[in-house]
Amino acid sequence: MTAPSKTGARKKVVVVGAGFGGISAASELARQDVDVTIVDRRNHHLFQPLLYQVATAGLAPTQIASPVRLILGRKPNVHIELDEVTGVDVANRRVRLGERTLPYDELIVATGATHAYFGKDEWATHAPGLKSLEDALALRRRVLLALESAELDMDPESRKRLLTFVVVGGGPTGVELAGAIAELTRRALACDFRRIRGQRARILLVDSGERVLSNFCPSLSAYAKTALEKLGVELMLKARVGHCDAGGVDIGDLRVDAQTVIWAAGVQASPAGRWLGGELDRVGRVTVGADFSLPGNPEVFVIGDCARIVDAAGMVVPGVAPAAKQAGVYVAKVIAARVAGKPAPPPFRYSNFGSLATIGRKAAVADLGAIKLKGFAAWVFWCAAHVYFLIGFRNRIQVVLDWGWSYLTFERGARLVFDAVTRGPGGALSVASPSTEARIAL
Amino acid sequence: MTAPSKTGARKKVVVVGAGFGGISAASELARQDVDVTIVDRRNHHLFQPLLYQVATAGLAPTQIASPVRLILGRKPNVHIELDEVTGVDVANRRVRLGERTLPYDELIVATGATHAYFGKDEWATHAPGLKSLEDALALRRRVLLALESAELDMDPESRKRLLTFVVVGGGPTGVELAGAIAELTRRALACDFRRIRGQRARILLVDSGERVLSNFCPSLSAYAKTALEKLGVELMLKARVGHCDAGGVDIGDLRVDAQTVIWAAGVQASPAGRWLGGELDRVGRVTVGADFSLPGNPEVFVIGDCARIVDAAGMVVPGVAPAAKQAGVYVAKVIAARVAGKPAPPPFRYSNFGSLATIGRKAAVADLGAIKLKGFAAWVFWCAAHVYFLIGFRNRIQVVLDWGWSYLTFERGARLVFDAVTRGPGGALSVASPSTEARIAL
Repeated sequence: MTAPSKTGARKKVVVVGAGFGGISAASELARQDVDVTIVDRRNHHLFQPLLYQVATAGLAPTQIASPVRLILGRKPNVHIELDEVTGVDVANRRVRLGERTLPYDELIVATGATHAYFGKDEWATHAPGLKSLEDALALRRRVLLALESAELDMDPESRKRLLTFVVVGGGPTGVELAGAIAELTRRALACDFRRIRGQRARILLVDSGERVLSNFCPSLSAYAKTALEKLGVELMLKARVGHCDAGGVDIGDLRVDAQTVIWAAGVQASPAGRWLGGELDRVGRVTVGADFSLPGNPEVFVIGDCARIVDAAGMVVPGVAPAAKQAGVYVAKVIAARVAGKPAPPPFRYSNFGSLATIGRKAAVADLGAIKLKGFAAWVFWCAAHVYFLIGFRNRIQVVLDWGWSYLTFERGARLVFDAVTRGPGGALSVASPSTEARIAL
Repeated sequence: MTAPSKTGARKKVVVVGAGFGGISAASELARQDVDVTIVDRRNHHLFQPLLYQVATAGLAPTQIASPVRLILGRKPNVHIELDEVTGVDVANRRVRLGERTLPYDELIVATGATHAYFGKDEWATHAPGLKSLEDALALRRRVLLALESAELDMDPESRKRLLTFVVVGGGPTGVELAGAIAELTRRALACDFRRIRGQRARILLVDSGERVLSNFCPSLSAYAKTALEKLGVELMLKARVGHCDAGGVDIGDLRVDAQTVIWAAGVQASPAGRWLGGELDRVGRVTVGADFSLPGNPEVFVIGDCARIVDAAGMVVPGVAPAAKQAGVYVAKVIAARVAGKPAPPPFRYSNFGSLATIGRKAAVADLGAIKLKGFAAWVFWCAAHVYFLIGFRNRIQVVLDWGWSYLTFERGARLVFDAVTRGPGGALSVASPSTEARIAL
């Protein structure tokens, strides 16, 4: 199981990031005659499409995350490092990790994206986004503690504020979050509480566009709107958030007092672009050539959400998981061809298999080009597709069982707040030992 | 589903704590003609006997914790509050929660125990204990990051320190932790790493007594010792920890450099005893009468790990889960008899069904009085008993599946560090947003 002795002579490929792009590149490279080092500052690959289910207590973190060592640890030519990349020395072909450096012959940067607040970064505290397990656990805590605080609060105004949830952004993440929060709160308020039993949570979904799921065809957007409204979600379209604070949000001229505001409105590429010194677009993505290489540095590739690329069909490749995975495999093949002295593969062409979004129980939409599905059929398709793409046999079984159980019982299995609550200054309820950025006072 | 209208006339019973004692008392009282309020500062009941498996990445938190609302939320006469109790006004029969108070006719205090450092509380940072999910997640992070740091560290001395794990305390928790860490590290070092592949972690189990598992019969202790040594655990018996710091521990005259030191040596009752003004024993437990009531205040009961009681057989009831559960049911019956105007039940008598501890895969001990089991038979019995007592049908299925999967594949499913790592001052690896008390620098 040790690496072959000819290691020294092999080309060194460093992959930064263990998301969809990085993992697919490293997996493909593991089959090639190269030495691969994959670095991430988290020890797990995250299946982001189901992250909203962790945030709304439907699934547990373990079910949608796989340790990188479990995915790639047995490959003899793959070396895994848990560390924080702090920069790239492109001229000397070295990745910087604090005081340490890692030399490379070929580099793949796949560091993904983060939330964007359109210059209002101070909103991040009040309206957190959803990109990592930490984000999802913080959001789960926030939603569950809002209900618990409403149960204890005797003031009707304050209780109303605690039971108001605002989701900013009507893309798939926003729609899925709004639907899941509606289902969670409806069920919890109907059965599990005493003083607030029978009350209704108010869930607002805000989007600046004319319709939700604007990437889908209009008929599916219309279905999603109806399905959300059936769950009790209020849609505010053509509306913009003008201000965010601890008490709520301003939406246009309207002030909405809300304990929980969630940001699903914009993304911004990770700072990796700045390390490379390339040309950045408006959202911080590095403009790369038709083979994902950095102009002027053919040994540096940028893939996934931090790259801007126009594919062979003249289309800007979207920042979605399938595109990142295809890019990872493509770049690995480019590198393999170089190593073998063979001609490079033809320019990248993105295969769009369609878009999926779920609104709630038995309600989803699938835009598969010629085929449009909605309702129960789309929901079954959505479930099957997500389980199929989830990494790890054990995770798949667990998710299937959990979904089956929830379907039958309406229960949510992951309604945990890990931390103990305490009374903060002024008698507010807060958690005793929260993550630094997730400190909440209710 | 709303409470009957005669609520106002009913006796108010407040239960503080949702551990084994509190949950069993509240469940039993739910069947009686009383109004029950159960308060805990966590939103879940924790199955502590399997907590060491969360700490060693075998199980996920959701699998051993059940939201209190899922257990008791549907009982019409049970009200659940997530809040922090800060004291008891025994004279006016009110529980204090910050500025708020909760009146009671009968009070059950079941607030459990915490770690005891024998007056050396400053050791808590360096040698954390294992009582809550937060503790378990912090420990899991510490163990997993120690391995990751050893993989990155080029200095042999420093690497040795990172791969040294000291468990203080040879009771069931200490034995189970030492065995699980041995299995986890052995497997991980054999397969999942590259630079440290083939190296051995050093695991020390320290106890001041003559044998581990001193509550078990000597032959089972001897078996446990052999089984631990087979896993590579070094036992240091008749040894005491004299000092603890960030670099390691002093054990007698011996200095051991270790990144990870775990405290499983002593417990101390929660501060609830001080609220009540009763007589406290050496470990802070309140001395109660034969029916668990506070001397002089028959309406106040103290049960579980925070009570000291001599039962009808003249035996001091031990601080174990079955005793707390029996106490909860007993006290609920005392209260029910009072409410119904019937005579009190006979004095409490603890039913000891025996002790169980597992060392590792296919190795456990069971001391069931006349019957002593060890090895595979005891292990099967241990698994069955723990699944049987675990609350929640879904949790039971998941744990059985996870154990089955791990048994077949040797995999550990919960090897997650939620947080991202970063480089701290001096280039040390640490997590970016840890729980306050769990901040670690490697």
